[in-house]
Amino acid sequence: MEMRDMILVSLDDHLVEPPSTFADVPVGLKDLAPKIITKDGAESWVYEGRLLPNIALNAVVGRPPEEFGFEPTAYSQLREGTFNPDKRVEDMDADGVCASVCFPSAVGPAGQLFADATDKKAALALLQYYNDWLIDSWCGSNPGRFIPLGIVPVWDIDLAVAEAKRIAKKGARTISLHDNFSAKGLPSIHSGYWDPLFAVMEEERMVISAHIGTGNQAPHASPETPIDAWITTMPMSIAVAAADWLYSPIFKKFPNLKIALAEGGVGWVPYLLERVEFTYKHHRAWTHADFGGKTPSELFFSNFITCFISDDFGMKNIDFLNPDMICWECDYPHSDSVWPRSANALWDSVKHLDKETIDKITHLNTIREFRYDPREILGRENCTVGALKDRSKHVDTAPVAGRGGFNPKEGAEKRPVTSADVMKLFTVAL
Amino acid sequence: MEMRDMILVSLDDHLVEPPSTFADVPVGLKDLAPKIITKDGAESWVYEGRLLPNIALNAVVGRPPEEFGFEPTAYSQLREGTFNPDKRVEDMDADGVCASVCFPSAVGPAGQLFADATDKKAALALLQYYNDWLIDSWCGSNPGRFIPLGIVPVWDIDLAVAEAKRIAKKGARTISLHDNFSAKGLPSIHSGYWDPLFAVMEEERMVISAHIGTGNQAPHASPETPIDAWITTMPMSIAVAAADWLYSPIFKKFPNLKIALAEGGVGWVPYLLERVEFTYKHHRAWTHADFGGKTPSELFFSNFITCFISDDFGMKNIDFLNPDMICWECDYPHSDSVWPRSANALWDSVKHLDKETIDKITHLNTIREFRYDPREILGRENCTVGALKDRSKHVDTAPVAGRGGFNPKEGAEKRPVTSADVMKLFTVAL
Repeated sequence: MEMRDMILVSLDDHLVEPPSTFADVPVGLKDLAPKIITKDGAESWVYEGRLLPNIALNAVVGRPPEEFGFEPTAYSQLREGTFNPDKRVEDMDADGVCASVCFPSAVGPAGQLFADATDKKAALALLQYYNDWLIDSWCGSNPGRFIPLGIVPVWDIDLAVAEAKRIAKKGARTISLHDNFSAKGLPSIHSGYWDPLFAVMEEERMVISAHIGTGNQAPHASPETPIDAWITTMPMSIAVAAADWLYSPIFKKFPNLKIALAEGGVGWVPYLLERVEFTYKHHRAWTHADFGGKTPSELFFSNFITCFISDDFGMKNIDFLNPDMICWECDYPHSDSVWPRSANALWDSVKHLDKETIDKITHLNTIREFRYDPREILGRENCTVGALKDRSKHVDTAPVAGRGGFNPKEGAEKRPVTSADVMKLFTVAL
Repeated sequence: MEMRDMILVSLDDHLVEPPSTFADVPVGLKDLAPKIITKDGAESWVYEGRLLPNIALNAVVGRPPEEFGFEPTAYSQLREGTFNPDKRVEDMDADGVCASVCFPSAVGPAGQLFADATDKKAALALLQYYNDWLIDSWCGSNPGRFIPLGIVPVWDIDLAVAEAKRIAKKGARTISLHDNFSAKGLPSIHSGYWDPLFAVMEEERMVISAHIGTGNQAPHASPETPIDAWITTMPMSIAVAAADWLYSPIFKKFPNLKIALAEGGVGWVPYLLERVEFTYKHHRAWTHADFGGKTPSELFFSNFITCFISDDFGMKNIDFLNPDMICWECDYPHSDSVWPRSANALWDSVKHLDKETIDKITHLNTIREFRYDPREILGRENCTVGALKDRSKHVDTAPVAGRGGFNPKEGAEKRPVTSADVMKLFTVAL
C-alpha cells in the first residue's frame, strides 16, 4: 500500500457561511435572519441586533503561517474553498480528501446562535432553514463529497426531537451537539431530559458529533499565557466530556448510539482508559459506578469514536485502542489542518500499520458509522488520494500572503501572542 | 531484580495536621492560630472565625473501599499514620516506602489558608511557625524518612523570598506552589512578579512542587455527573499548567530550576509533547513562541519532573519520555493510593524495564533532584522494600470498617455518588 492508495473521509471540517446563506429565507424572516454588514472594512454577521465577532473563526487555510490567526474579518481574506462548496471540493481534491463532515461556523458548531436568540419562534424557523441550506445546498451541491450534518433547537426537547426526525428524513447522518450541555446552562445528560432526542438518534442511527469547545472549554491559564499553550491543550480538554458521557446512563439506555469526540486526538486515550479502569476497580464500592455489565473500557470502545488530525503517538499505540472506532479528520480550514499536505502527514502516522487497519481509520469506520459511502456514488477508483490529486493539478495551493494575519498592522512587533490578544478578537460591540 | 530490591522514595504524600499542630505558637499568636473545635461530633479547624470544611480532605487510607469518601470529620475516623509521623513511618515500612515528601492538608497544599487571611501579620508568623513545625517536628521526627517541604507567603513577593531563604537554611528541598497563580487571583508566571522567588529557588536548588488542584481545577462536568468522572480526569487536568509553565519565560531565565507535576500521571505526556512540537512547528511563525534555542520537548525533559502512582501505559512508553525525570509517588493517605500494596502495583508497572531505569524512577531521580538521600542516613540495606516490609510485620494493615464513609447514615442507598454530593462536603458554615 502507498499513500496514493488511501481513501480519506474526514470526520471533522468546517464550512464558513457565505454572505448569501440566508438569502432565500421566506419573506416573513427576511428582516429577522442574520445578515452581513460592513464596518471599517470588516464584514460581520448581525443577528437580533448583536454583532457576531468573527465570520470565520480561524479559517486561515491557504495563508503562510506568519499570517495565521483568529481574525479573518472579511471574505476577501479567506480562501474561497472555506465558503464555496464547489471550491471546497477542489481543495479536497488537492488534499486527497474524498468526503467530509462540515460543521457550521457563524451559527456555532452546535447551533448555539439560535439557542441564544430572544425570538425563539424565528430562531426555530431560521435553524430549520439553516439545516435545509446545509444539507440541500452545501452537501447537495456535490453528491458523495459531503456527509450531511444537522443541528437541533436545544432550547426545547420536543422541538429538538421533531427537528432530529425531520433532518433524518432529509438524510442527516449526524447531529452536532454540545460536548457538555450543562456548561451551556442546559440540563445535563444525566438528567434524562435529552433521552427522547437520543432515542430518535439511536433509532435513526445518527451519530452524536461532539466537537471540542462546544461545552467544556480548554481554560486559558492566564491572560498573559502564550496562545500556543491553549492551542496545545485544546484537543485534550474533551477528556472531561469523554468521562462525563462514559459515566452517564446514556449508552446503557441507548446501546447503539455513538458519539464522536471531534478534534479530540487519540494519543492520550489509552492513559485515560487505564485511569478509568483503575477508578472503576478502586472506587466503585463507594461510588456505585455501573457500566451495565461491561467494563468502562468496553463501553468506551463500543460507543465512542475518537478522531485525530495527526497523532503519531496514538497510531503507535493502536493496540491499546479499538481500531474500529478511530477516525481521521482534516479540520479544513482551521489552523491545525495541514492542508494541502494532509495525506502526507497522515501517511507518516499510519504507514507502519497493516492495510486493513489503515483502511478502517482513513474511511471504513466513518463510512460505517455515518452510513454514507462515497465509493457507491463516485466509484471507488475515483476516491483514492492518488485519483483525487491527479485530477486537481489545476488547483493552486500555494500560500497567498497579504490576506490578513494576527496583527498585520503592528508589523514588526514580535512579542509572543497571548491568550488576551486572541480573546480580544472575540469581544466586539456594534 | 525483584520487587523486594526496589527502593521507594515517594514524591507526593499528604500529612494531616494533628490537633496539636499549633500548640506551641508564641503567646501572642495563641488566640489567632487555627484550632480544632468539635460540633455535633465533627472536628473542624477554625481560623479567623472561618470553619474549614474538612480536617483531612480525602484521607481514607486503611478503610475498606466501601467507606472511601471525602468526608473524614474526626480524628477518630482516621488511621493514625495520617497525622502521627511515627505511625506514618510504620505505615511507610509496611508499604515498603523509604522516604516521602508530605504536603499540608488543612492549611492547603500550597498554604492558601494563610494567603486568604485578613490579619496578614499574624498569617506570616503562623506560616513561619507552620514551616518550622513541618520541617522540625514532622520531618525531624524520623531522620531520613521525610524530605522537607515548605510553603511561602504568596501574598507578598518580598516576604515569599525571605521565607524561601529562611526555610532553605532549615533544609527545605522544595516549595509547594500553586500550579497556576493566576487562577488564584495572583500575578501570573509570565508577569515577572515571581522571578525573585524563582531566582532564590534556583540558587538554593529547591524544586517547585506543583500539585494538581492547587490552581487549575479539574472541572466537574455537571453537578449530576458521577464523581468517578472527576476522579478520572483530575490528574490530567495539570496539562493546562504544564503547557503554561512550558510556554512561560521561567525556565529560560532560570535554566536550573525544576518543577514537579505532583500526581499528574505520565501516560498522557508523550501525546502532549507531540502536540506541543506540532504547535511549535506549525504556529510559531505567527505566535513568536521561543524556547531559547531548544525544542519544547527538550525544555520539558530538562526541567519538568513527571510523577505517577501507577501508570502501566506510561511505563510501556518510557522511550517517549526522559527516564531521568520520572518519579514515583505513593499519595498516602488519599483514596488513589494503593497502600499497603504500593510496591506490588508499582512492580507490575515497571518490572519489564532494566534495573537502571527502575532505580531512577523509584528513587534515584527524586534523591538527585531533591538532594536528599535516605540511604546515607539509614544505610542502603535498610531502605529496600524487602527490608522495610520485613521489619514491619507487627503493623496491622487490615482495613478497618466503621470509621465513616461517604454516606454511612443513608446506608442502603446505592445511587451513584455525584459531583454535587462531594462538593456539598466542602461547603459548611460555622
